[in-house]
Amino acid sequence: MIPRYSRPAMADIWSPESRFRIWFEIEAHATEALADLCVVPASAAKALWDWWATEPAIDVAAIDAIEAVTKHDVIAFLTWVAEQVGDEARFMHQGMTSSDVLDTCLAVQLARASDLLLADLDQLLAAIKRRAVEHKLTPTIGRSHGIHAEPVTFGLKLAQAYAEFSRCRARLVAARAEIATCAISGAVGTFANIHPAVEAHVAAKLGLAVEPVSTQVIPRDRHAMFFATLGVIAGSIERLATEVRHLQRTEVLEAEEYFSPGQKGSSAMPHKRNPVLTENLTGLARMVRGYVTPALENVALWHERDISHSSVERYIAPDATITLDFALARLTGVIDKLVVYPERMARNLDRMGGLVHSQRVLLALTQAGVSREDAYRLVQRNAMKVWESDGALSLLELLQADPEVTAALSPEEIAARFDLGYHFAQVDTIFARVFGD
Amino acid sequence: MIPRYSRPAMADIWSPESRFRIWFEIEAHATEALADLCVVPASAAKALWDWWATEPAIDVAAIDAIEAVTKHDVIAFLTWVAEQVGDEARFMHQGMTSSDVLDTCLAVQLARASDLLLADLDQLLAAIKRRAVEHKLTPTIGRSHGIHAEPVTFGLKLAQAYAEFSRCRARLVAARAEIATCAISGAVGTFANIHPAVEAHVAAKLGLAVEPVSTQVIPRDRHAMFFATLGVIAGSIERLATEVRHLQRTEVLEAEEYFSPGQKGSSAMPHKRNPVLTENLTGLARMVRGYVTPALENVALWHERDISHSSVERYIAPDATITLDFALARLTGVIDKLVVYPERMARNLDRMGGLVHSQRVLLALTQAGVSREDAYRLVQRNAMKVWESDGALSLLELLQADPEVTAALSPEEIAARFDLGYHFAQVDTIFARVFGD
Amino acid sequence: MIPRYSRPAMADIWSPESRFRIWFEIEAHATEALADLCVVPASAAKALWDWWATEPAIDVAAIDAIEAVTKHDVIAFLTWVAEQVGDEARFMHQGMTSSDVLDTCLAVQLARASDLLLADLDQLLAAIKRRAVEHKLTPTIGRSHGIHAEPVTFGLKLAQAYAEFSRCRARLVAARAEIATCAISGAVGTFANIHPAVEAHVAAKLGLAVEPVSTQVIPRDRHAMFFATLGVIAGSIERLATEVRHLQRTEVLEAEEYFSPGQKGSSAMPHKRNPVLTENLTGLARMVRGYVTPALENVALWHERDISHSSVERYIAPDATITLDFALARLTGVIDKLVVYPERMARNLDRMGGLVHSQRVLLALTQAGVSREDAYRLVQRNAMKVWESDGALSLLELLQADPEVTAALSPEEIAARFDLGYHFAQVDTIFARVFGD
Amino acid sequence: MIPRYSRPAMADIWSPESRFRIWFEIEAHATEALADLCVVPASAAKALWDWWATEPAIDVAAIDAIEAVTKHDVIAFLTWVAEQVGDEARFMHQGMTSSDVLDTCLAVQLARASDLLLADLDQLLAAIKRRAVEHKLTPTIGRSHGIHAEPVTFGLKLAQAYAEFSRCRARLVAARAEIATCAISGAVGTFANIHPAVEAHVAAKLGLAVEPVSTQVIPRDRHAMFFATLGVIAGSIERLATEVRHLQRTEVLEAEEYFSPGQKGSSAMPHKRNPVLTENLTGLARMVRGYVTPALENVALWHERDISHSSVERYIAPDATITLDFALARLTGVIDKLVVYPERMARNLDRMGGLVHSQRVLLALTQAGVSREDAYRLVQRNAMKVWESDGALSLLELLQADPEVTAALSPEEIAARFDLGYHFAQVDTIFARVFGD
Repeated sequence: MIPRYSRPAMADIWSPESRFRIWFEIEAHATEALADLCVVPASAAKALWDWWATEPAIDVAAIDAIEAVTKHDVIAFLTWVAEQVGDEARFMHQGMTSSDVLDTCLAVQLARASDLLLADLDQLLAAIKRRAVEHKLTPTIGRSHGIHAEPVTFGLKLAQAYAEFSRCRARLVAARAEIATCAISGAVGTFANIHPAVEAHVAAKLGLAVEPVSTQVIPRDRHAMFFATLGVIAGSIERLATEVRHLQRTEVLEAEEYFSPGQKGSSAMPHKRNPVLTENLTGLARMVRGYVTPALENVALWHERDISHSSVERYIAPDATITLDFALARLTGVIDKLVVYPERMARNLDRMGGLVHSQRVLLALTQAGVSREDAYRLVQRNAMKVWESDGALSLLELLQADPEVTAALSPEEIAARFDLGYHFAQVDTIFARVFGD
Repeated sequence: MIPRYSRPAMADIWSPESRFRIWFEIEAHATEALADLCVVPASAAKALWDWWATEPAIDVAAIDAIEAVTKHDVIAFLTWVAEQVGDEARFMHQGMTSSDVLDTCLAVQLARASDLLLADLDQLLAAIKRRAVEHKLTPTIGRSHGIHAEPVTFGLKLAQAYAEFSRCRARLVAARAEIATCAISGAVGTFANIHPAVEAHVAAKLGLAVEPVSTQVIPRDRHAMFFATLGVIAGSIERLATEVRHLQRTEVLEAEEYFSPGQKGSSAMPHKRNPVLTENLTGLARMVRGYVTPALENVALWHERDISHSSVERYIAPDATITLDFALARLTGVIDKLVVYPERMARNLDRMGGLVHSQRVLLALTQAGVSREDAYRLVQRNAMKVWESDGALSLLELLQADPEVTAALSPEEIAARFDLGYHFAQVDTIFARVFGD
Repeated sequence: MIPRYSRPAMADIWSPESRFRIWFEIEAHATEALADLCVVPASAAKALWDWWATEPAIDVAAIDAIEAVTKHDVIAFLTWVAEQVGDEARFMHQGMTSSDVLDTCLAVQLARASDLLLADLDQLLAAIKRRAVEHKLTPTIGRSHGIHAEPVTFGLKLAQAYAEFSRCRARLVAARAEIATCAISGAVGTFANIHPAVEAHVAAKLGLAVEPVSTQVIPRDRHAMFFATLGVIAGSIERLATEVRHLQRTEVLEAEEYFSPGQKGSSAMPHKRNPVLTENLTGLARMVRGYVTPALENVALWHERDISHSSVERYIAPDATITLDFALARLTGVIDKLVVYPERMARNLDRMGGLVHSQRVLLALTQAGVSREDAYRLVQRNAMKVWESDGALSLLELLQADPEVTAALSPEEIAARFDLGYHFAQVDTIFARVFGD
Repeated sequence: MIPRYSRPAMADIWSPESRFRIWFEIEAHATEALADLCVVPASAAKALWDWWATEPAIDVAAIDAIEAVTKHDVIAFLTWVAEQVGDEARFMHQGMTSSDVLDTCLAVQLARASDLLLADLDQLLAAIKRRAVEHKLTPTIGRSHGIHAEPVTFGLKLAQAYAEFSRCRARLVAARAEIATCAISGAVGTFANIHPAVEAHVAAKLGLAVEPVSTQVIPRDRHAMFFATLGVIAGSIERLATEVRHLQRTEVLEAEEYFSPGQKGSSAMPHKRNPVLTENLTGLARMVRGYVTPALENVALWHERDISHSSVERYIAPDATITLDFALARLTGVIDKLVVYPERMARNLDRMGGLVHSQRVLLALTQAGVSREDAYRLVQRNAMKVWESDGALSLLELLQADPEVTAALSPEEIAARFDLGYHFAQVDTIFARVFGD
């Protein structure tokens, strides 16, 4: 966890206090269920909840000190709780195994983290939508291979981002369901010493599904799927961040990250305004993606479990969720405050001497009866002259002066193909697909 | 593509012939739709389909030869088709861009590959279920950390695998939906020169959804999610393969891969029978997982697209699907023919002098009023003696001879905790959860 | 192996024929050494080499047919050779294990592959050096964050690439040494049935080092290091490829991949000339990097070996070396034929109204006694005006008109800081460091 | 950074205080060199060092507070130092750019981290060597595929580990040299405003090499190589950890992690002693390997630099080095205190009824004139009976009773092949190779 890339609400989920609180709730709910089954006295559950009602502070240091001796975290915790609650506490954890607590706790934490991430995505989607609508018809050049292709609108770029993050949201909802399961099934998952009703009770109280079959642990294919999904979302963050970085390049400068008063772009060069937020997002995306492989390697535990997954999850569960939370919020801020330069977009769009209209002429020639190969050759030979002039020459004028072209199309027919609005006829259709009507 | 790890049906999806056939169908369906819109003559679509009805061979070498000059694969293909079909072919590809064809083709290929993989999973699930039912009550030791824990049944191990691969199946269904989309939207996704109705027509004909907003390409977050899902499935394959490898270890030998007559385990050691299929599956899983990272890196294309994703997909689309198909089939065979040794399972289960019952005694002591800490200490000190005797001593006898223990429990009460059947009381419950009633 | 991304010499190393030829040489050299030790008759070695001297064709299909029965590749090969050579062949493989042959063969293949890659790097370095010298003093703008920073020369960019690939070359020499070892040590590496002298003999004949201690196999940390090194080289390829892609962007266009006559940039847009080679290199780099993780996962084989590494190496050994070979050659071609536009570089350099000189003014102000903070503020406030004018305003003129600036520096002193040549004073120094004197 | 997996000396390298101290030293050394060049007054360097001689505390919070405004860490630091040192401080950082400080600082930190890791490796090597010598001739079964193969000694297993970690050490020495370079070359690496002599001076003072050509930053292929090397070392850790995990399995139990008094293996099962340290090492290895991919992705920065690498390095530079340091120390402890059970090794070795000697009989038959194929068949048919009896039958007795075998070898000749010592004849040779004489 890097403080500079973390936000309090998400970081809090992963604090020792939060973890111990969830552990307690699992144990207390389970004791309650055990009491209902007459396995333990009802007074045991009552004692636990009574103590809890006093809103006790969790003494993390004391628990850690016990663990230094027992080398077992759950036993250390149970010992500490027993010291607080007294004799009735000995009924806690009856028939359970540590992993029942640890894995169910992780499920709660990941579910809560998912909820924060879903809220982040909602805010990001709202920001993208707002800017998409604002720039629905702001013309800008579409680029393939970094090379001018044909006109699009800036709103369309954002509509694509909206659709992409909507997919990310749906994936995260599915990923949340993957990990939001509860297992209270005992040492090897047989419920030998604990009735399935306990699991059902705890699951219901914590808003989790029941794990159909666990071993000692909840199977790690669930977590692998979860972290893989975060990795995919990180990829989408990188994509939008890269778009902004490109747009802010000195020679392009069609949009720019907001640059706050007092900010310094460079210690050496006072003129610099750099897309540092989106570059940062590119790096953060690498990290979130980097956690996917360890998560995939965690699946193949030995037999009913080994504990190799545990250290991995101590890193990646907080780091992946905290980093992604920060990244989504940062990206929302970037989009929200993005400074857009429509006039520069227009200038860039015009700079290639009308090359962006080459395809329409090609199609017109074909429809006028020229073979596809000839049409391509005719347009390309004029387009290349414009290209080599760096936009100083006009494609329209060259075509109108090419007798092989004018043999098929009149100058007026050619000129009619140089119409920007033509390209935006379907923007409404696309917006309706993406944002609904 | 490694021939030794590929099966014909899946490999065929990725042959040049298959690709060109799909390209043709996309172009012909699109021409049909363009004819309906009166953009091209109806005779153009007819000419294409008439030629197709002759079931023409695809001359891959001829198309490659054209590409060597044009350095553009779709143009090469269109040129070759035009040579076959004649003049009417010039109306093909009207208003489309290469990626319309390439990406929609990839969608068809990945959807077909998904269908094969789903069938593979169904066969694997059937094999697992059959063996799970067969061994529903075959007792075996459950192991955590590779160390004997408590009894389970071999059927429970397989029930867990069944549940895991059922999740994999559901994930693959979702992943298939991610990539089964059609984009026919022109050079930068604006439909500038092609009406959305063409896209809708082609999508319907090919069984694909319409891509809500494309740029020049279908967004690669879809493919990232697809390959990440394959990686997760590979993790589950590795898990079950690792289980078999462990069970076949000389000292364990509770199950064994089928060893066919004539097979040689080692060129030097005639006595060897090795779990080579499951070791191989472990390696294949590494490969399928290895393709996840390049797929994630493919998401952040520049602006409306760059072509960096293309070479990656030429590797991973065939390699990941072919390898996974082979691995699922191989795993199915392993499970189907797995030689299981219930008597050896029973012997291993007994070898630790009753240590597997230690928890039940612990619980009984607690319920008899001993504090949890004392109970743990009492059981542990006797268990350690058994452990150090490597199972030569009997935990039951030691406990019955320990006065601190017998102060709380009578010898008969202790003996009652050494009952194997007790552990399997919930097997029906778990089977019902996993396989339904 | 993707034919489109492979070159014959490298692909040939990985053909079945090449593999079987190396196997034979290992077996024959070993038989020779065994004969010297009087373990087998000298006639056995002679019979093998006599047959080999007839330059026999390797019947891959026949060997594969035998393997289909034995399910063991080395036994199949030995059987086939015995069929060709006759009775004397039974002395082959005496005391050896399959892995002695397989691993030593892989060492030979990887060493040969390394030699090709080293030759590739030499050609790349030569191309980079030639262009670096050519453009040693071609001014161009240096960019950090994609934003104009200060002037560099195009030769300096290439000098950096030269230094980077020189490091890659040194790393590859080290990686080659990692994997070029020979193990002929028997079933578990004890030389129980084969004297170490055999290993020493085979190693010497094949130009390999002796593996100090093997188990059944050569340890896979060696191969992990090898493939990790290829991954790092791929990263450097991506870096230089990305530089070219950026330089070719329409708005920048300072350099361009060579565009051959007849080439078509787009099926739809005749005007396009795209950096497809370097985009392709970006994708190929992803693949070579993607093979690093499986190679790392291969290290932790069980006990004296398991065979999980084998399938992984069947993919990545050919795929990583063939892809990297192709990529290095392609990059060499790109650099060799790169079309450089010095006049466009000059125009871009000038477009920001002299902002590139801002730091020199800052330093001059500081040296004239202005505090660093004030100096920064003074320069920044003028620089921002130029920035916002998109280079229409002149930083020099604004500074000369700013009384707070002129209080410290005369207009002439300011103007003296706007000197391009000043930035290149150390180019000779850097070139001497990189290329030697 | 996970406190539970970090050790103070390594963690300290990455504290904000340490970073700021290194920054100061870089700036002060540079100012000194600038004074030698008469670019700044000698009093400036003196003022800095005089202040430093007072051993001032670094007020991290104050620096952070300034950064919150400037959004630039180096500027914030310089501002804070200027507040402490006074007016002379304005000469600091003259002609330098932030990356000169940041990258050189990172080089110092990684070099120091490398030194700790090298010391860790030395301790690990010493522990392995001690135990290898101790168990040089302790017989144990060698296993391929987890199946009994032929005898080895436990010392040989450790000799292999020693050789592997010796290679890791050599790789780390090389990796350290990769990143221990100093760049003080200004905004785009041209030394435009700072003489190369400054760089040389700072490099010499800090024990670094001079970076031959930097851009704004030290090229990241160096760091990629560094972290890839750590990933390979992690693979070797996993390998040795996996060996221990296997040896501790209940059915094998040839060695065991030390289990300290008071330790609890399981909250539910008092009898458990689990290989939790080596399982933990397996997980930590996954993490260190997981950092390789982000490091590889960091190489391709845009033009003279972008800052995407920075956030990645804020995670992986501390996390990879701290985790690896912890893991190496933990592994050293495991090996140092490993409880080895030679008598259990002997029992396991004997349990397969002499199957481990099958190859020697095979060879003896071949040398007695039986064809390889027949010899294999004869041995295999007897070996399989032993195998199926789970070691209850004796291979020696079966062979002595097989007339086809005794036709070639007398019972005494057969018995002579069942000699354990025979397998260890070359142990001295191997030890000499690994440990020297």
